Amino acid sequence: MEDNEALDRIDEMRDLVNANLESIIGEQSAVFGEVAEVSGQVVLAGGKRVRPIMVMLAYDLAGGQDIDEIIPFAMSNEFIHTASLVHDDINDESLIRRGQDTIHAKYGQAKAIIAGDWLFSQGFGLGGQYDKSVVDVMAHYCSKLASSEFTQIDHILDLSTSPEDYLEIVKGKTAGPFAAGCKGAGLIAKSSEEACEKLFDFGMEIGIAFQLVDDLLDIRGDERMGKPRGSDIYEGKMTLPIIHALTILHGDQRVRLAEIIHNFEDSLFDELISLLNFGDSLSYTEILIQNHLERAMLNLDYFPDCDAKQLLKHLVELIKNRHK
Amino acid sequence: MEDNEALDRIDEMRDLVNANLESIIGEQSAVFGEVAEVSGQVVLAGGKRVRPIMVMLAYDLAGGQDIDEIIPFAMSNEFIHTASLVHDDINDESLIRRGQDTIHAKYGQAKAIIAGDWLFSQGFGLGGQYDKSVVDVMAHYCSKLASSEFTQIDHILDLSTSPEDYLEIVKGKTAGPFAAGCKGAGLIAKSSEEACEKLFDFGMEIGIAFQLVDDLLDIRGDERMGKPRGSDIYEGKMTLPIIHALTILHGDQRVRLAEIIHNFEDSLFDELISLLNFGDSLSYTEILIQNHLERAMLNLDYFPDCDAKQLLKHLVELIKNRHK
Repeated sequence: MEDNEALDRIDEMRDLVNANLESIIGEQSAVFGEVAEVSGQVVLAGGKRVRPIMVMLAYDLAGGQDIDEIIPFAMSNEFIHTASLVHDDINDESLIRRGQDTIHAKYGQAKAIIAGDWLFSQGFGLGGQYDKSVVDVMAHYCSKLASSEFTQIDHILDLSTSPEDYLEIVKGKTAGPFAAGCKGAGLIAKSSEEACEKLFDFGMEIGIAFQLVDDLLDIRGDERMGKPRGSDIYEGKMTLPIIHALTILHGDQRVRLAEIIHNFEDSLFDELISLLNFGDSLSYTEILIQNHLERAMLNLDYFPDCDAKQLLKHLVELIKNRHK
Repeated sequence: MEDNEALDRIDEMRDLVNANLESIIGEQSAVFGEVAEVSGQVVLAGGKRVRPIMVMLAYDLAGGQDIDEIIPFAMSNEFIHTASLVHDDINDESLIRRGQDTIHAKYGQAKAIIAGDWLFSQGFGLGGQYDKSVVDVMAHYCSKLASSEFTQIDHILDLSTSPEDYLEIVKGKTAGPFAAGCKGAGLIAKSSEEACEKLFDFGMEIGIAFQLVDDLLDIRGDERMGKPRGSDIYEGKMTLPIIHALTILHGDQRVRLAEIIHNFEDSLFDELISLLNFGDSLSYTEILIQNHLERAMLNLDYFPDCDAKQLLKHLVELIKNRHK
């Protein structure tokens, strides 16, 4: 498949996802009124739709034949993801998401909490129609998402956070839902246990890479993030480049890095980046991204060559190139 | 069945509910750590367990034979209920629930939001293992819960709130989950559509009565509420006795009632109650409670006499007598 054709097909899948989301939000707004409209604004504000596209491709790769069978599950993943964003934004006091005012900024915190709950309910309603094995995977990784967020809070501005702590948090918070989505797609396609585990591992590796790319974009700045540059640093989140630099730097440089993290402001970006570069921490993060993406790809070798596999590889490239 | 025997059997069911909740929290704490422990403290802090007991009795009444078949669904109802309490307490800025510090008071708001999400995930995991029809009912009423909470927020300190507005909110927020639980139990018992609708209506009427009793207890004060007297008034919630009094009182009395509601403090309880009594608003609420409980009971006539029916009638009596 030519690159252009692959990109077109991924665009078509994104259009399909958006059409389904619009249709659900339209129907649900007629039933549930304001909470659906307010929540719907975030759902429909865009976003890359990487999760539902990946779920649909994983289903296809695993031998699934009926797109209608997987669509509600793909939508479920996007609703649950959006629910967690709405609640995260409250906790992070973020004012902008996907280029728009966040719900709590626009409608107040109480409605934002409830809007997130509504989005979770929708996600679970869509996902709850599948077999117990699928529901178990999803519910487990939703619970795991929450437990990782607890851990992340405990590590706010904790300069002794290790790469292992980081990986544990990221596996739960970002990568787990990717892994669960891909495995769930395999289960729905009635694929073998081995195939489901390959899909799970693929999703986990992709998810880790995805978070690492986010870490870099937050530091370097990128309008596609839909939120201000440096948000993670302002929130005291220990991202991998920071953790790496805190480990590698010594003496005055480490002291200065700690000061910058504790009292961050926009004027400190250049100094922060030169410290991170001194420790080669951005390059190190780039290498890690490459490693995780390669490990993700290895899991695809298990499956026969097909269009879905080609498209997943292109999706991986798209994720990788976000930080360039 | 003698009264004492009925009460003993309801106590036994509550013990069974508590044992199951303890077992789930224990298992999940081993997997999810702090978030499960923190959330578990609220789940295990007590509570009347009216919802899961009602679900189990509805299943029995509908001809269900295997208690193990209904237990996860009963637990699911209690987890979702607890999740909504945790998020409500943040929005209401409540410091005490079930006689304990609320999660946000003890661990901060961010963890409270996430703990609620964890409880929802557990609830959906437990409920998601049933047929699509059951999941649909539950997910619909969870979404409805959220939409009613939006409406309730819009009516905070809105003195023009009508009894119809009130009923709409209560049906979504309190009674809908009761109705969905009872109907879900009927579906799980593979009962007829008609029987499921009777159970639904039973739950809805019970739920409305339950909320009206809560409204009275909030005004009169009752240590069993596990939260301070007058919480609803401090939060600006339009409860039925208040709505009724605002409708029935005129001139200076209505002006004074409005003043009291807008600037409530504990020293105003006596004056508030005398205004409510002048409008017969507390008696009116008691009559409404009686009416809804009677309408609930009529739905039970559809079912053959059996122990479950007797016990449900006793449960209704327990609810009724909470305000005495």
